[in-house]
Amino acid sequence: MEFKSKIKTIEWIDNYSRMVDQTVIPYEYKFINITSGEEMFHAIRDMIVRGAPAIGIAGAHGIVLFAQEGADKYTNRDEFVKWLIDKAEYMKTSRPTAVNLMWACQKQIDVIKNSQADIKGIVEELKENAIKLENEDIEINKKIGDYGAEVVPKGATILTHCNAGALATVGYGTALGVVRSAFAKDNTIKVFADETRPRQQGARITTFELAMDGIPVTLITDGMCSYFMKKGMIDMVVVGADRIAANGDTANKIGTYTVAIAAKYHNIPFYIAAPLSTIDISIKTGDEIPIEERSHEEVTHINGKRICAEGINVINPGFDVTPHELIAGIITEKGILRPDYNKSIAEAFSTSKL
Amino acid sequence: MEFKSKIKTIEWIDNYSRMVDQTVIPYEYKFINITSGEEMFHAIRDMIVRGAPAIGIAGAHGIVLFAQEGADKYTNRDEFVKWLIDKAEYMKTSRPTAVNLMWACQKQIDVIKNSQADIKGIVEELKENAIKLENEDIEINKKIGDYGAEVVPKGATILTHCNAGALATVGYGTALGVVRSAFAKDNTIKVFADETRPRQQGARITTFELAMDGIPVTLITDGMCSYFMKKGMIDMVVVGADRIAANGDTANKIGTYTVAIAAKYHNIPFYIAAPLSTIDISIKTGDEIPIEERSHEEVTHINGKRICAEGINVINPGFDVTPHELIAGIITEKGILRPDYNKSIAEAFSTSKL
Repeated sequence: MEFKSKIKTIEWIDNYSRMVDQTVIPYEYKFINITSGEEMFHAIRDMIVRGAPAIGIAGAHGIVLFAQEGADKYTNRDEFVKWLIDKAEYMKTSRPTAVNLMWACQKQIDVIKNSQADIKGIVEELKENAIKLENEDIEINKKIGDYGAEVVPKGATILTHCNAGALATVGYGTALGVVRSAFAKDNTIKVFADETRPRQQGARITTFELAMDGIPVTLITDGMCSYFMKKGMIDMVVVGADRIAANGDTANKIGTYTVAIAAKYHNIPFYIAAPLSTIDISIKTGDEIPIEERSHEEVTHINGKRICAEGINVINPGFDVTPHELIAGIITEKGILRPDYNKSIAEAFSTSKL
Repeated sequence: MEFKSKIKTIEWIDNYSRMVDQTVIPYEYKFINITSGEEMFHAIRDMIVRGAPAIGIAGAHGIVLFAQEGADKYTNRDEFVKWLIDKAEYMKTSRPTAVNLMWACQKQIDVIKNSQADIKGIVEELKENAIKLENEDIEINKKIGDYGAEVVPKGATILTHCNAGALATVGYGTALGVVRSAFAKDNTIKVFADETRPRQQGARITTFELAMDGIPVTLITDGMCSYFMKKGMIDMVVVGADRIAANGDTANKIGTYTVAIAAKYHNIPFYIAAPLSTIDISIKTGDEIPIEERSHEEVTHINGKRICAEGINVINPGFDVTPHELIAGIITEKGILRPDYNKSIAEAFSTSKL
């Protein structure tokens, strides 16, 4: 059974990209039109669009925007291609941790490199490919959701961290895709959402999109997870991912690793939900995943107001790595990968067209 | 070597109680004079004064304030005593979890019950006892600090949660008393402070008092602790307590249990620092400790602004219980109690005058 979500996070329209402005949720739900490649770079970097799969699509859109600009600027095809590939490589650097961004930008670079068309034709091919990736993202999420729903117990309470929802993807979501598919079969499913400091994506975005879709959600602070686990109020944990190494080690929003340790201590299954495009088989372990250091102000200020003493030290890693031994399964569009991940991931890739 | 702290959190002055207003830290450092028993009840309940040892002293002060009021109202000693004991029992109920409050109020009730004096004399005896408890609190904290400092490795980084500092006590602090004593011997000691959502006592109060006393402090969000533990950047954890059961199970600010699990997973010693007055030998395990449910707005709003969707569910337990098996030692004024806690706690009490 399919759950109908009201949310479309990012969409290519004629000659621009339309996205939900995630910086104003939950106060407003409004769209922003991104009309240039540089604007897209900043929209990704400043987290107007966020979530690993969504920023992948955003990157792909951004390269179409650059292509449109280049087509106005260049008449020489070789010069155009060289300039555009530079811009596409630049787009990859808008954020460092989520590999979907590099993956989707690379897909566009492949289109450019393999194209036989003229400048105008390349722009069209990039646009078509961006729309294809966009549509595939939703289809992939629905598959992830349906595979994941199979392991959700009846009436379960699912804890999630950050937002791996419709608003982290084109629509439907990965971790919250599992929730949506499970809820479509059993409307007694409930969600506990970690606030997810410092950026509060759980409080701001996960509660917002679940409320919008009518799925019951309870907001808790990040430190509370163990309290509810001990009380038997959490049946499973499902989170998204920004990058998964070949051995299953998973980078996700800071705080995820703490939740995974708490789940292990209470014997609660901890799942990752992510498309295969989040898996970076070029790296062996999570130690190789670059972790973004973000602005200190995200920790020291909330809604523009300082919450701590002045002049203190701050460290603000945006992500942490959950080691594979804490992960019960990785829910993908090819099914649920189980340990040994080196083996199950390699198998998923060998049967995949990725 | 003694560390000189600038902070005196609560102090009896002539005929009123003067306290640091903790609701405006870190923006302001100002004192409030509490001049009636009812005002004190609200100051405790609304967390103008907070921290288990500090609210114990606040309760003792509050009973002196009620006694002063009663002395104006009653001429009959028996009626005065009956009324005052009712008020003292009421003062105990201003918050439910920290046993120091009940302990200090009971100390005052004992004074009332054992007094041979007239009404005016009872008021004087209560005042003297309140000042004695106040002074003892600082002495006890210094002993806790000195015992604790013995187990702090050279150049250690100490993680703490919430605020068990000078501002949670009359002065000096319990967990931060350990930090102060260690820093007096070795000024390469550093502190990592958990933000401690929802009330942010770590961000607001711990960073403030450590900065005020010149001790280096790094603020992190609650979910980050495991990240830094894995990187080898945390050498030990020291936190305070609101109530400790006879078996060592310890109630402390919500989120503490999560930190304790993370410390265990990384083989980092996790210590409680608390006076014996925080130990409630009348209860066998942490299951019997009442956990305060606080306002949902503490979770859904920060600095008066909503941070989540409207109409969602919230649960806001103010405390959690860390089971004794996660605790490396309980640092008290009688030395560091070690497992088996049933035995070491019973021994500490048998040699104590408490």
